[in-house]
Amino acid sequence: PNQYLAGLPTTIFTIMSQLAVKHGAINLGQGFPDTEGPQDIIQVAAEALQDGRNQYAPLTGLPELREAVAASNRRFYGLDVDPATEVVVTSGATEALAACLMAVVEPGDEVVVIEPLYDTYLPALKLLGAVPRCVRLAPPHWSLPEAELRAAFGPKTKAIMLNSPMNPSGKVFVREELELIADLVREHDVYAICDEVYEHLTFHVKHVPLMTLPGMRERCMRIGSAGKSFSLTGWKVGYVTAPAALASVVAKAHQVLVFATAPNLQRAVAYGLNKDDSYYQALSAQMETQRDLLRDGLERLGFETLPADGSYFIVADISRHAQGRGDVEFARWLIEHAGVATIPVSAFYDPDGETPPQNLIRFAFCKKPEILREALKRLEKAL
Amino acid sequence: PNQYLAGLPTTIFTIMSQLAVKHGAINLGQGFPDTEGPQDIIQVAAEALQDGRNQYAPLTGLPELREAVAASNRRFYGLDVDPATEVVVTSGATEALAACLMAVVEPGDEVVVIEPLYDTYLPALKLLGAVPRCVRLAPPHWSLPEAELRAAFGPKTKAIMLNSPMNPSGKVFVREELELIADLVREHDVYAICDEVYEHLTFHVKHVPLMTLPGMRERCMRIGSAGKSFSLTGWKVGYVTAPAALASVVAKAHQVLVFATAPNLQRAVAYGLNKDDSYYQALSAQMETQRDLLRDGLERLGFETLPADGSYFIVADISRHAQGRGDVEFARWLIEHAGVATIPVSAFYDPDGETPPQNLIRFAFCKKPEILREALKRLEKAL
Ligand SMILES: CSCCC(=O)C(=O)O
Ligand SMILES: CSCCC(=O)C(=O)O
Repeated sequence: PNQYLAGLPTTIFTIMSQLAVKHGAINLGQGFPDTEGPQDIIQVAAEALQDGRNQYAPLTGLPELREAVAASNRRFYGLDVDPATEVVVTSGATEALAACLMAVVEPGDEVVVIEPLYDTYLPALKLLGAVPRCVRLAPPHWSLPEAELRAAFGPKTKAIMLNSPMNPSGKVFVREELELIADLVREHDVYAICDEVYEHLTFHVKHVPLMTLPGMRERCMRIGSAGKSFSLTGWKVGYVTAPAALASVVAKAHQVLVFATAPNLQRAVAYGLNKDDSYYQALSAQMETQRDLLRDGLERLGFETLPADGSYFIVADISRHAQGRGDVEFARWLIEHAGVATIPVSAFYDPDGETPPQNLIRFAFCKKPEILREALKRLEKAL
Repeated sequence: PNQYLAGLPTTIFTIMSQLAVKHGAINLGQGFPDTEGPQDIIQVAAEALQDGRNQYAPLTGLPELREAVAASNRRFYGLDVDPATEVVVTSGATEALAACLMAVVEPGDEVVVIEPLYDTYLPALKLLGAVPRCVRLAPPHWSLPEAELRAAFGPKTKAIMLNSPMNPSGKVFVREELELIADLVREHDVYAICDEVYEHLTFHVKHVPLMTLPGMRERCMRIGSAGKSFSLTGWKVGYVTAPAALASVVAKAHQVLVFATAPNLQRAVAYGLNKDDSYYQALSAQMETQRDLLRDGLERLGFETLPADGSYFIVADISRHAQGRGDVEFARWLIEHAGVATIPVSAFYDPDGETPPQNLIRFAFCKKPEILREALKRLEKAL
């Protein structure tokens, strides 16, 4: 078998979720909501199954979904997007990431990525023969180090992958940081793959797509996710917004990787995207309440938390409790002794890079308040 | 953008389907049924949406679907498959093909493929840096040339891709041919990626999975498709059966490419796979009736047809009618002047290889008998 793939460890999400099941732990590891998405969206999906929509969808997606994605770009960000040529529907954001990478990189190209990072970024780009140039955010404020970022760009750079709001850090990149990134993207004449799956999950800060900055419209592939926007992570419906010249290449990658996505789910997502602003506000307000609940509880227990203005996640410093244990060991200990599953943040760093921080674990707060409270109680008891 | 991907032509299926719409043509091009799959399967999918099954499915698939795939391997082929470690559910067979290729090839490896071939095979393997070694079936009997096949295997060979029942030819490989392939696979110590999406669509010949031949259990990745087995091509649920050591690598490729597949569709497919033999018999009997209808009609009109013992497709020789036009030109002419869309078979050959046959077009017969009759009438009128 392929040596690199065969050598990849089992994803940390699967390992921690399996351990959680084994020990009856509350799963604040893998990021999925424990409440279902809106019933009306689910209803549309069920009805669409019944009315003869079960053969291949068009390669780039149902027209109504491409239109809804374009409308959503306009409504939230003032972006003018042609639904016919600038949107590609994918089987989730993971496929979108792979397809966008395939669309732009050739073997030997360098891609700038920001650590800590989502766990498919490095395998996806390495399997395409591209070379990652990692830049590390600095805890405890997740600050973006300008000099390192500048140094990561060079003549071989083909693209940067930017995840904002970011998993696992919960960081939402601010305009100043985005301007720095946009400058480098323009200066080096490269692309940006913008993983914005948590775009509607920010807490009193505004999510700014890199694509809205000067000169970025033609260089960005912006990825959205129905799973995250509608709390239906199992559906695996994603969408890429990109200039037509790039979107057509992303579509070709999609053709080779998957070809098309279930039409009933697409139709329901089109319906969902057209929900009015109050839906999106309620979603982020609920998530913010949960973040506050978890953050305050963790702080009370002596876990210093790092800023988390968006996403499903907040990272906590374990130094006070870990007694010299690393994050992996401590996370295992928490599952076994507190009955709470988390993810060690060191799992989000290039295994071939320098030693990552060992003092951070990630908690998911996309869980019911009573579950979060119970988790805090368990932590308190164990510590 | 990536030069190779950007240079790929738009898939012939999309081009012909768009032309078909433009000219109001009957679409015997793209292979999808014009009748819906079984209502009870659709019902299960709709119900599963409503009972809280909308978050991430497990990476390798729902346990009930993996069990159904294993049971189906046993029932139809006597294969003993461990559902926990030897089945990976994918987002359709296209993803399964990409994941299986990723699982075994490294850049520079050679992969033997048999032309005419399905249109993602070459892009998928070229994008991974692998090198195709094409062997051409010889019309008019689609015979497999032993010497050429032997010559295609060498020290750099890593795998063969075998599609049986085959698209676009409709050929079902017979035991003698499979034995030759198995000999070569063993002799050269390589893998076989077995695209068997039409496994339940054979007409009075038995489909024999290569995996059932001596020594093949450990070397084959066998791909099935709910879309094809249940006439629900839009669902994009596929499954790979492979020895555990390979399945675990296919799962890692799936993790990077898509991660998981919609749980409600998976559950419905699990239900479908457990249907009794009469379902599968009725499906192939109906398809056979349609093949006969189309084949006999085409022959009457002076199109010699090539043997098609399985799949959705039959290939016809256009020499008598084409008046020197090539297959592409003639297929366009048929759409415009007869109102019938087909696919030129030359589209199924490596564009970088020797000139393919120019005298063959592919008809899909996965359409209602009245539609096939109307198409034949239109052809008669135009010719
Ligand atoms: C695809 S499983 C991981 C879900 C997720 O986004 C996370 O937990 O980080
Ligand atoms: C995925 S679109 C093509 C469908 C098909 O299998 C064919 O027409 O050959």
